[in-house]
Formats: sequence, structure tokens, C-alpha cells
Amino acid sequence: MNESSHPHGYLSEKKKYLARIKRIEGQVRGIHRMVDEEQYCIDVLTQISALTSALEGLALGLLDDHLRHCVVDAAKSGGEEGERKLAEASAAIARLVRS
Amino acid sequence: MNESSHPHGYLSEKKKYLARIKRIEGQVRGIHRMVDEEQYCIDVLTQISALTSALEGLALGLLDDHLRHCVVDAAKSGGEEGERKLAEASAAIARLVRS
Amino acid sequence: MNESSHPHGYLSEKKKYLARIKRIEGQVRGIHRMVDEEQYCIDVLTQISALTSALEGLALGLLDDHLRHCVVDAAKSGGEEGERKLAEASAAIARLVRS
Amino acid sequence: MNESSHPHGYLSEKKKYLARIKRIEGQVRGIHRMVDEEQYCIDVLTQISALTSALEGLALGLLDDHLRHCVVDAAKSGGEEGERKLAEASAAIARLVRS
Repeated sequence: MNESSHPHGYLSEKKKYLARIKRIEGQVRGIHRMVDEEQYCIDVLTQISALTSALEGLALGLLDDHLRHCVVDAAKSGGEEGERKLAEASAAIARLVRS
Repeated sequence: MNESSHPHGYLSEKKKYLARIKRIEGQVRGIHRMVDEEQYCIDVLTQISALTSALEGLALGLLDDHLRHCVVDAAKSGGEEGERKLAEASAAIARLVRS
Repeated sequence: MNESSHPHGYLSEKKKYLARIKRIEGQVRGIHRMVDEEQYCIDVLTQISALTSALEGLALGLLDDHLRHCVVDAAKSGGEEGERKLAEASAAIARLVRS
Repeated sequence: MNESSHPHGYLSEKKKYLARIKRIEGQVRGIHRMVDEEQYCIDVLTQISALTSALEGLALGLLDDHLRHCVVDAAKSGGEEGERKLAEASAAIARLVRS
């Protein structure tokens, strides 16, 4: 556990996140199989859109946990650490919105 | 090969697409490992944004091939089939834009 | 009418598009008024998300018309012009997906 | 100023935001003029993508200010108000990511 000895927001839900990521991995393998079986382009594109939505859900969950724990705790202590955590969170949100 | 005996646009690049999807699968496993190792939330989110961009690139490539082959060929023959292919392509584009 | 003497796909629906863009302009003025009246940040953000969705709808409509007319006509004639139109359409789709 | 007597995060930058929204309004009028002058579809779509990016920038700015002021202050006081602000911020982020 790097960045700080501060327990990350998602740890209480770690198992759920790991299971969720495993499902996403399964979706990717499903898309690989569709292309390997030469299935219709539109059907492959439909699965990619579904995968993108699943990824957004995963990211939004992690972000919510991060805000509730890491950012709030740092904000309470204030000072440079609080400022840094907020800037980091905003940059992560911007990457998600623009990707 | 379903939907039609018409060869799908991506078939000439099938190997490249399969390799690309394998890399995406590797990115998902990387994210799984980061969460399993309890890495910092922001670093996990950064990898999810990178994965989302890789998926967008994959989808845009497949869509371009689909337009150039399936849609153009159907448009040339015109009639209901041409109309259906165009409507299908537009719906796929809308899903990508809105996901 | 530049680019070519070829009538653009959206011309048959020009009035509808102009009315739609006027409504979008009204939404922007509404957001300006909310900020001017110092309304709550979250309420302003909600209106910006609604405006973004309206813009996506406008873009998808124009793109559909463009595919059905400009791209299909050029694809039928084939050659460099057909190739150029397809490349142009794919680039426009990519900008929409990534914005 | 509704929602609470708490000064919103963006107030210190109000003038800048109002000017920024005015520019966005000008971009919308520019798109209206392009369609009215029957300009090429792809050129109109390019301007819509630029407008979407400008809107994203506006939203991310407002969100950053909201996190730094409204959410942090509520988080410091904790309790139901802090919880509500965090839930509200996460929902606004989700709308932005998914729009």
C-alpha cells in the first residue's frame, strides 16, 4: 500500500471491486471470442459500449470511495495535504469526463 | 459468420484486432492486480481512463471498417438493406458517443 | 454553400436544426442566469449535463444526415472522393466520441 | 442564493464564469449561423465538438470549486450534511461522466 499509510477508500469493498473487475475481464474475453468467430461488427460494437459503461461504473464507485475517505480526511487536516488531495481528485475527474 | 454472408469490414485486420483486444485484457488484469495489491485509488483511476481510451480506439477502428465495407456496399445496392445498414451504423455511433 | 455544390444532408431539415440550436442557445442563457443569480453549484452542473446531452443529440442528427447523403453519394461514385468522405466522417465520429 | 446561506464555491470567480458562459453562447450562435448559411456538415460537427469541450471545461471548473468549498466545509462539519454533500457531488460527477 503506497502513497501513504492511509487506508484507501475502496478497501472495505475490495472483494466486490475484484469480482467486478473479473466480470469486466470476462466481457473483454467475450469480445475477443466474437472477433475470433468473425461475428457481425455491430454486435461487437454493442458489447464494447456495454463494456465502456461497466468501466465507467467501476471508476465512479472508486472515485466516490476516494472522495468519502481520502479526500475528506485530508480536507479535515487541511493544509498542503488537503490541497493536494483535492487537486488530485479534480484531475482524476477531468480524465474520466474527457476519456 | 452470421448477419449475412457478407464479409465483415474488420476481417482483413482480424489478427491486429485480436492482438489489440488481448492487450486490453492485459490492462484489465493489471487493474485487478493494482486493487489486489491495494494500490492508491488515483493510480487505479488513471489506468481505468487509459483503458477507456484504448476501448474507444478499438471501437472507432471497427466502426471505420464497418462504414467502409458493410455500409458502403449496402449503400451502393440501396433499397431497404442500404437503409437498414445506415440506421444500424448511426445507432452504433450514438451508443459510442453516449457511453 | 462551400465544400462542394453537393447539397448537404441536413438541408431538408434545416428549419428543425435552426430551431433546435435556438433552444440550445436558450439553455446556455439559462445557465448564465443561474450563475448570475448565484444559484447552487449542483443545480448549475445538472443543467450543463442536460445541455451536453442536447448537443450530442444535435451532433448525432447531423452525422446521420451526413452519412445518408454526402457519404453514401460519394461512396457510390467511389474513387478518391468516396475515400475522402469516409475518412472525414470517421474523423468527425472520433472527435464526437472523444469529446 | 438558495440551497443554503453557504457561499457557493464559484462566487469568487463569478465574473470569469459569466464571461466564459457568454463565450459559449457565442459559439452556439456561430453554429446557428453556419447552419443558416448552409455550411458543410463536417465543419458544423467540428464546432459542436469544440463547444462540447468548452462545456466540459466549464463543468470541471465549477465542480472543482464545489469540491473545494461546499464539499470540504460540509465534510469538516460531518454528519448528515457532510454525507449529503458527498452523495450530491458523486451524482453530479456521474452525470458528467455519462453525458
